[in-house]
Amino acid sequence: MLAHLAVLQLAKCGLMPGRAGAFDTPGVCTALEHRFQVLHSREIMVTNQGVEPMATVRLLTDAELSGDAAAVFADIRAVRNDSYVNDFWRALANDPATLQRTWNSLKAVMAAGGALNPKVKEMLYLAVSIAQGCEYCIHSHTAAARGKGMTSAEHGELLGIVGMAAQTNRLVQALGIEPDVAFRVT
Amino acid sequence: MLAHLAVLQLAKCGLMPGRAGAFDTPGVCTALEHRFQVLHSREIMVTNQGVEPMATVRLLTDAELSGDAAAVFADIRAVRNDSYVNDFWRALANDPATLQRTWNSLKAVMAAGGALNPKVKEMLYLAVSIAQGCEYCIHSHTAAARGKGMTSAEHGELLGIVGMAAQTNRLVQALGIEPDVAFRVT
Amino acid sequence: MLAHLAVLQLAKCGLMPGRAGAFDTPGVCTALEHRFQVLHSREIMVTNQGVEPMATVRLLTDAELSGDAAAVFADIRAVRNDSYVNDFWRALANDPATLQRTWNSLKAVMAAGGALNPKVKEMLYLAVSIAQGCEYCIHSHTAAARGKGMTSAEHGELLGIVGMAAQTNRLVQALGIEPDVAFRVT
Amino acid sequence: MLAHLAVLQLAKCGLMPGRAGAFDTPGVCTALEHRFQVLHSREIMVTNQGVEPMATVRLLTDAELSGDAAAVFADIRAVRNDSYVNDFWRALANDPATLQRTWNSLKAVMAAGGALNPKVKEMLYLAVSIAQGCEYCIHSHTAAARGKGMTSAEHGELLGIVGMAAQTNRLVQALGIEPDVAFRVT
Amino acid sequence: MLAHLAVLQLAKCGLMPGRAGAFDTPGVCTALEHRFQVLHSREIMVTNQGVEPMATVRLLTDAELSGDAAAVFADIRAVRNDSYVNDFWRALANDPATLQRTWNSLKAVMAAGGALNPKVKEMLYLAVSIAQGCEYCIHSHTAAARGKGMTSAEHGELLGIVGMAAQTNRLVQALGIEPDVAFRVT
Amino acid sequence: MLAHLAVLQLAKCGLMPGRAGAFDTPGVCTALEHRFQVLHSREIMVTNQGVEPMATVRLLTDAELSGDAAAVFADIRAVRNDSYVNDFWRALANDPATLQRTWNSLKAVMAAGGALNPKVKEMLYLAVSIAQGCEYCIHSHTAAARGKGMTSAEHGELLGIVGMAAQTNRLVQALGIEPDVAFRVT
Repeated sequence: MLAHLAVLQLAKCGLMPGRAGAFDTPGVCTALEHRFQVLHSREIMVTNQGVEPMATVRLLTDAELSGDAAAVFADIRAVRNDSYVNDFWRALANDPATLQRTWNSLKAVMAAGGALNPKVKEMLYLAVSIAQGCEYCIHSHTAAARGKGMTSAEHGELLGIVGMAAQTNRLVQALGIEPDVAFRVT
Repeated sequence: MLAHLAVLQLAKCGLMPGRAGAFDTPGVCTALEHRFQVLHSREIMVTNQGVEPMATVRLLTDAELSGDAAAVFADIRAVRNDSYVNDFWRALANDPATLQRTWNSLKAVMAAGGALNPKVKEMLYLAVSIAQGCEYCIHSHTAAARGKGMTSAEHGELLGIVGMAAQTNRLVQALGIEPDVAFRVT
Repeated sequence: MLAHLAVLQLAKCGLMPGRAGAFDTPGVCTALEHRFQVLHSREIMVTNQGVEPMATVRLLTDAELSGDAAAVFADIRAVRNDSYVNDFWRALANDPATLQRTWNSLKAVMAAGGALNPKVKEMLYLAVSIAQGCEYCIHSHTAAARGKGMTSAEHGELLGIVGMAAQTNRLVQALGIEPDVAFRVT
Repeated sequence: MLAHLAVLQLAKCGLMPGRAGAFDTPGVCTALEHRFQVLHSREIMVTNQGVEPMATVRLLTDAELSGDAAAVFADIRAVRNDSYVNDFWRALANDPATLQRTWNSLKAVMAAGGALNPKVKEMLYLAVSIAQGCEYCIHSHTAAARGKGMTSAEHGELLGIVGMAAQTNRLVQALGIEPDVAFRVT
Repeated sequence: MLAHLAVLQLAKCGLMPGRAGAFDTPGVCTALEHRFQVLHSREIMVTNQGVEPMATVRLLTDAELSGDAAAVFADIRAVRNDSYVNDFWRALANDPATLQRTWNSLKAVMAAGGALNPKVKEMLYLAVSIAQGCEYCIHSHTAAARGKGMTSAEHGELLGIVGMAAQTNRLVQALGIEPDVAFRVT
Repeated sequence: MLAHLAVLQLAKCGLMPGRAGAFDTPGVCTALEHRFQVLHSREIMVTNQGVEPMATVRLLTDAELSGDAAAVFADIRAVRNDSYVNDFWRALANDPATLQRTWNSLKAVMAAGGALNPKVKEMLYLAVSIAQGCEYCIHSHTAAARGKGMTSAEHGELLGIVGMAAQTNRLVQALGIEPDVAFRVT
């Protein structure tokens, strides 16, 4: 997360030429050397994963896809008209059945031509993702909503609503009140 | 929740005339009598709260409002053009400062004339309330969204999106993946 | 929820013969009469919904199902070998497309013959439902897990694990720590 | 939840003497009779559970406790100096090991004599219960906090903080921002 | 997150002088070169965002603030008596209305002089942030609570309570029990 | 998180020899230099924390443990038959009482010899961790479940169940339905 610090410290300690001398706070280099030794002593560090994105499964490249998974990827690209397939699908591709089921459901739910327009749908998706605290989903659906036309003003209003709902949801729960009779479906 | 059962059983056991004899399963009346005794032995039952809505604070009647709270209630009625004030506000009225702050914020966030129309705003509010699992809020904002024009078809699509987002949110988190570089704000 | 109290109070106040005289706390009947008037004054009470289960949509009877929804119900009954269809599906039936998609996905995910046995699958479903705080789901999946053979001892261990995970999840988040390098997929 | 309605409707329809004639909306009694038939047709209704509190396990009476569970109950009563044992423990008593472990941990965490006073501890417990949306816990810990001296003013401030935190938590997550370097532990 | 690894691997592969030769596991450099190519092929990498903190909106510098936003920043600095404005506000500043409303509410809720002292208020804020799983908020409010006097012992007790509440919350929900009559407000 | 970008940009700008010239997009180096100055101007950067894992408390080394904490670490190592102690415990070690209580409870709950086998227990733990959105816990318990024999097929089915439960949980809550009478414990 704070990678730039590590880099800067390496520079500062003369471990990365071209920046040496820029900073000089006593003890930093010694601490850095110590940390390196700690990491090294665990024998964990010298692997090929340092620059891979993190995940609990491998993110499959196109070349690693099964036939079923490759077919789903082809459909994702066709439906979205975009060659880029994001890492969620690359992770899900480890289980082709779940990949296919999830994509088919998502495609049906988010399809154009329903009662709600695509931008509103994507904003609802985003609102849920925020309320559930899914970091990846927040980033991906903010980008998607923008791609479908969400303006900065609309984004701002969505944030206002999400924040307000989050607040009143908890207040209501704290107050322990039951739904008014007036809310009942008739 | 299952009050009709209690009532029916009372009837069955001859405790509520007019329905006696409709059902007759051995042991039910004995169990019912036992339960009454258990409740009675706790000396909790003979209060005046049985038919009050449940809450962790008193739900204030109009007559019980402080001057500040009454002013907020007047504004709620004016803005909504509806004399009915739901129980959330009656509970919140125990703390006039929070009542006022919450209403003012809500009024600003949900005001007409912004980038999003009132129906979409209310649907976003509902989506968050579902995602956070607030029962009261789900009932109140479903009713409110319908009041602002949400059709059954739109409600159905909203449910589809909320369900799908809930699913992919957890899948993404299970997969432990970090946001794609492609999602970054430029 | 506390329906028995209302019933008992009605009895106490002589409104329900057969129990009169069992209790006598001053003021209860007056309060009860007052509450009735409050409810009545709202003109909400005299509807036909008092004994209907609560929901944000109508719970459809078999006779009210569309053709598509009826076909899904038939499949639910066939797969489960049980004529009883629980209220979740009766609510979802208002949107046949979501009903069908949800049932098809659920059927595929919970199908026998996979790597995990049906009892374990149902216990995982229950664990998630508890962690997400879905009251209905907790009741339905506890019943389902029992139906698939979950013993009281297994239920007890599941509860122990859910409680422990809930605790350490929050402790970990409170501590703000990042995943150990040792957990990375290789 | 809305038991009073059922009771009132029974009264209205002449099924509960003493209230007959108080209300008269066409169709209500017919609907009520219909609902009774629906419930009856499911052959579910005629059990002894209508007046039992709801739970996924039996709430054990003192007489039903195992020896180990009875010992825990005795300790709960001694520590709290109160003969009343609430339903959480009666449910947990089905698994004496979890009952004991949970009580022991709770007793240690909430013990007097630490850095925080008992009222503040209980208010923190309540705040978490609200944030996690646990209805029972909110009711029990609101009662407990009041029992330990929480005033209405303090309760009001707690609600204000919970609501504000809920709001900013979601705003922060929506904004997708990483912790400032300035927050790091030094 | 694991930036030091990338740096070390670069060093190991001779891409960062001064550390070359420190480690040598076969295949690492090849994997690293491959990863670089993968990233490069996406044409995403060569932007100016690599060292910017992540967010779904731009984090505004003081120079980029609107007049309204600048006024809020001035008030934040004055109230906190600290020139540092953390990134939450820099993100929120994209929507001056939400910035102002949020800050005003927060200021009112957290103001000194109420029934609860500032340290307890901040600890309640922290407890909610943990329970809702907001990483940024946990870091910021842990820092803030320390700044208002929270000791390590108090922090430890807070963690114990949060963990215990998280556990019993889920146990209660798993048990599906309704609030005891004894908890009702009288 | 995106540390490789920082590294690559440093390279591109000639700040990290051996990669210079690989990329050249106008303005990147200038932006990078600017960012360095921003960070520097905050006087935060030149500390010894850049390469430390992030946390709200210090992660204690073995040498820093109190006697009580050291005893718990010894037991963790003995029970797991593994010298590696993950960072959760190193963070918790700041409060030896919570460390001990948490470890003792976890050990009891996850102990072999119960009704459920260790692999199933770990998978339940993982399912809860996903449902609660605890990133660290998801990584650690995915690794632990694999260590106890969870296959990729089992992991895939677990993900399918978690996703499906997440979806139906929210649908049920959105529909606002109460548990069927049929689910009641008899």
